[in-house]
Amino acid sequence: MGLPLHEIACLVDGRLCGATDLEITGAATIATARSGEITLADSTKLAPQLLRSQAAAVIVPEGFEPAGIPFITVSDVHEAFAKVVRHFRPQMQHRHIGVSHAANISLSARIAPDVEVDPGANIGDHVEIGAGCVIHSGVCILDGCRIGEGVTIFPNAVLYENTLVGNRVIIHAGAVIGAYGFGYSLAGDRHKLGAQLGYVEIEDDVEVGACTAIDRGTYGPTLIGQGTKIDNHVQIAHNCRIGKHNLICAHVGIAGSATTGDYVVIAGQVGIRDHTHIGERAALGAQCGVMNDIAAGQRVLGSPAIEEKEEYRILAAMFKLPDMRKKLIDLERKLAALTGSEVQHSKDAA
Amino acid sequence: MGLPLHEIACLVDGRLCGATDLEITGAATIATARSGEITLADSTKLAPQLLRSQAAAVIVPEGFEPAGIPFITVSDVHEAFAKVVRHFRPQMQHRHIGVSHAANISLSARIAPDVEVDPGANIGDHVEIGAGCVIHSGVCILDGCRIGEGVTIFPNAVLYENTLVGNRVIIHAGAVIGAYGFGYSLAGDRHKLGAQLGYVEIEDDVEVGACTAIDRGTYGPTLIGQGTKIDNHVQIAHNCRIGKHNLICAHVGIAGSATTGDYVVIAGQVGIRDHTHIGERAALGAQCGVMNDIAAGQRVLGSPAIEEKEEYRILAAMFKLPDMRKKLIDLERKLAALTGSEVQHSKDAA
Amino acid sequence: MGLPLHEIACLVDGRLCGATDLEITGAATIATARSGEITLADSTKLAPQLLRSQAAAVIVPEGFEPAGIPFITVSDVHEAFAKVVRHFRPQMQHRHIGVSHAANISLSARIAPDVEVDPGANIGDHVEIGAGCVIHSGVCILDGCRIGEGVTIFPNAVLYENTLVGNRVIIHAGAVIGAYGFGYSLAGDRHKLGAQLGYVEIEDDVEVGACTAIDRGTYGPTLIGQGTKIDNHVQIAHNCRIGKHNLICAHVGIAGSATTGDYVVIAGQVGIRDHTHIGERAALGAQCGVMNDIAAGQRVLGSPAIEEKEEYRILAAMFKLPDMRKKLIDLERKLAALTGSEVQHSKDAA
Repeated sequence: MGLPLHEIACLVDGRLCGATDLEITGAATIATARSGEITLADSTKLAPQLLRSQAAAVIVPEGFEPAGIPFITVSDVHEAFAKVVRHFRPQMQHRHIGVSHAANISLSARIAPDVEVDPGANIGDHVEIGAGCVIHSGVCILDGCRIGEGVTIFPNAVLYENTLVGNRVIIHAGAVIGAYGFGYSLAGDRHKLGAQLGYVEIEDDVEVGACTAIDRGTYGPTLIGQGTKIDNHVQIAHNCRIGKHNLICAHVGIAGSATTGDYVVIAGQVGIRDHTHIGERAALGAQCGVMNDIAAGQRVLGSPAIEEKEEYRILAAMFKLPDMRKKLIDLERKLAALTGSEVQHSKDAA
Repeated sequence: MGLPLHEIACLVDGRLCGATDLEITGAATIATARSGEITLADSTKLAPQLLRSQAAAVIVPEGFEPAGIPFITVSDVHEAFAKVVRHFRPQMQHRHIGVSHAANISLSARIAPDVEVDPGANIGDHVEIGAGCVIHSGVCILDGCRIGEGVTIFPNAVLYENTLVGNRVIIHAGAVIGAYGFGYSLAGDRHKLGAQLGYVEIEDDVEVGACTAIDRGTYGPTLIGQGTKIDNHVQIAHNCRIGKHNLICAHVGIAGSATTGDYVVIAGQVGIRDHTHIGERAALGAQCGVMNDIAAGQRVLGSPAIEEKEEYRILAAMFKLPDMRKKLIDLERKLAALTGSEVQHSKDAA
Repeated sequence: MGLPLHEIACLVDGRLCGATDLEITGAATIATARSGEITLADSTKLAPQLLRSQAAAVIVPEGFEPAGIPFITVSDVHEAFAKVVRHFRPQMQHRHIGVSHAANISLSARIAPDVEVDPGANIGDHVEIGAGCVIHSGVCILDGCRIGEGVTIFPNAVLYENTLVGNRVIIHAGAVIGAYGFGYSLAGDRHKLGAQLGYVEIEDDVEVGACTAIDRGTYGPTLIGQGTKIDNHVQIAHNCRIGKHNLICAHVGIAGSATTGDYVVIAGQVGIRDHTHIGERAALGAQCGVMNDIAAGQRVLGSPAIEEKEEYRILAAMFKLPDMRKKLIDLERKLAALTGSEVQHSKDAA
């Protein structure tokens, strides 16, 4: 399985500098590479880590010439390294089996000829599935869903009735699309569930993370715009309309009827209040709590979320707060001494 | 599929004002309605949005007479609009199939005659399921569970052994009821798992959201009180006793042995410390972190959570903090000038 | 089913003080015990709760002699009480069925002879499963996974391809191991998914909570160290390396390539930035947001997370902030009066 370094340089179409006949036994990241293995460093910032690494060689971009280790220069470090990883750890090809006899498929479902449906998948009445889709084991697609072409749905994901899914969408394991919206009104002393007549619509090229939940709209769609990527454990509530090409990180919660423009970036554990609008290309910092509309391009932080720069100024002052408190007491005393008056309530105040 | 406006007014038993013969082609919310479609506006606050909407007509409550658009006045806007939505987008009736031969059901399970069990559902030994229940595909109900009447369990939800479920409960897809409590003690240098002899008890009319986890008690029940509604991704730890008619929003985490009174409202992403008690009708604001008991009726915010009013006062002051810091330095200098002394450590202090 | 108190004392090998012939009808925790039932109190702190309890008797540790209630003294309260609970509520023994014919198992999978695979479980090509494992219904184990001995995987958990699992690991229902990492780069105006050539490696004696997601590494492993216990709804992103014997509570989110030392404790809803390192035996307080490396043994709180003691000092000052603001205005006025000058912008500043 070993490969001389010059053959790796050849494989990735790179320029080799250093021991050409060195036998390379594997490929691993800097933090995990053992002696004999090749690694990658996509930035000169990694030079110190590289020095501490046991790696035998490294793949680097143009302009990075690390000392003390043979290196291969390429134009796209990640593409090149992926090739090397695939050489040493060939990806097992998933055996395509067509539509399994051990899947439970309604007679009224319409499934394109080349679709793969794995054992234990469940497909309801009048479901439509386009060409090239892969439906893994344990997936449940309820009545009336329509799925485009080239879609992959990983095991045990659930699509409630009438969900619409575009082309080339990826839905990860355990995701739940189209459950009831959490919309209640008090009827006497009981919480009464609102109408659940809507559905979820997912446009082309969206990725939905593992265990992520997107609730159906009240009367119409909850919409996920084209190209938007959603991480694991995200909650998108009823009637939300998410723009195109958003990035939504893990544990984000977006409450009912909130909307976002295109290219919005939402970091981990952010909460967004219901009915707010996030303008295009806005960036919401990790754990922030959005209580009001956010303008296009704005960067916010904190809970409640405010302009990033303002939050930094407040944080800087906050770290000085215990000192400010002391200074204030001190000033009060000095001023009192000056005017000959008593300092009152100073124990209460600070 | 089109319908003249006067027939819609008739359908919803409303009073029409405006173009009676106008052909309506669909029903959609204000934000998504296209020309030719009817929409709803349940409050006069929506008048500006209505003006910008392309909707051809609107359903409104008594006393709201919007300008420039035909409207139908009704007593319950949402009930009326739901009827119209159902007219234009008839709900597919789920084909009832009884107990599927493709479900895996223990011979010792006792299932009432009219229950629906979909293909791929798994039901363990000595499980009891009451009349009118619907058990979707991929649901796993482990040994000894007892389920009341009229319960719906959506696909791929899991009930660990001995879970008790009342009547008319709804459990959404991917929910996990009765997993082990996260109770560890150090035994030497290893974490040793505590007893897992308890179970989960869910009373009547509870709703459990998608991907929500409720852990079993150590020796007895983790209890969810009657009528309580739980959103998606919620964590309720071992031994918790949740009161009746609570509303618990998405991503809330309630640590072990915490308890709540009746009618508590917990907003999104709130965390509650173990062994704390939340009094009845308390309201916990989004993202707050509850470290101590909360009195009945109290409204809290922030992390650590404090009285809402006090938190607002602190936040108001905090937004002024950078200015306060400047003022403090300024005062210090003026006072120093007055007394002729040096300002010391001012760089450190502020 | 009743049992005289002296027989319970005998069952738990304890010393009885009080009414020996009292008939005990059940066992329950202090908060839920009804008359006739025995309870436990593992600390003298519970004396007040015990006084309010309806319990008929109590199991206590050496040195705790509660008043007004018969008690049994034992060396390990929890072990003793577990025995009593098991007497009154015998645990149903799960009927072992071997490898179910209703499971979907690839012909190339290698499964040790005494493994249990429940109906509806799905096992892919070239999967290896060691002796004594229990694979519940609805579990999906994709191609190339290797599972050690004595592992339990609860219903509907999903292992993506090539996941490595050590011995005695417990994986709870709905957990998702090995989904794609959330690593994107902009290619023109589209988000392009990075390489997904890695996998997840879980060492011996790890517990993974319900609905928890651990993403695969980019080129190599995402690693969970031996003996680490992970609660429900946790997100561990691509390339993370979690140390040994960590405790990671519910809703924690750990971003890409972060690492932790051994015996780290992470409380609920904590967020950890990508590429940060948490030193061994560090403790991260609930809801904190870690933006930088944390030293070994450090205790941090807050968002952004800082030293626990410093955070307490800041919080103490913050609660005084509204008063500080008033004092500051007051001082300003007094000083102005003293110098005869005008107070400027005081409305803006405070």
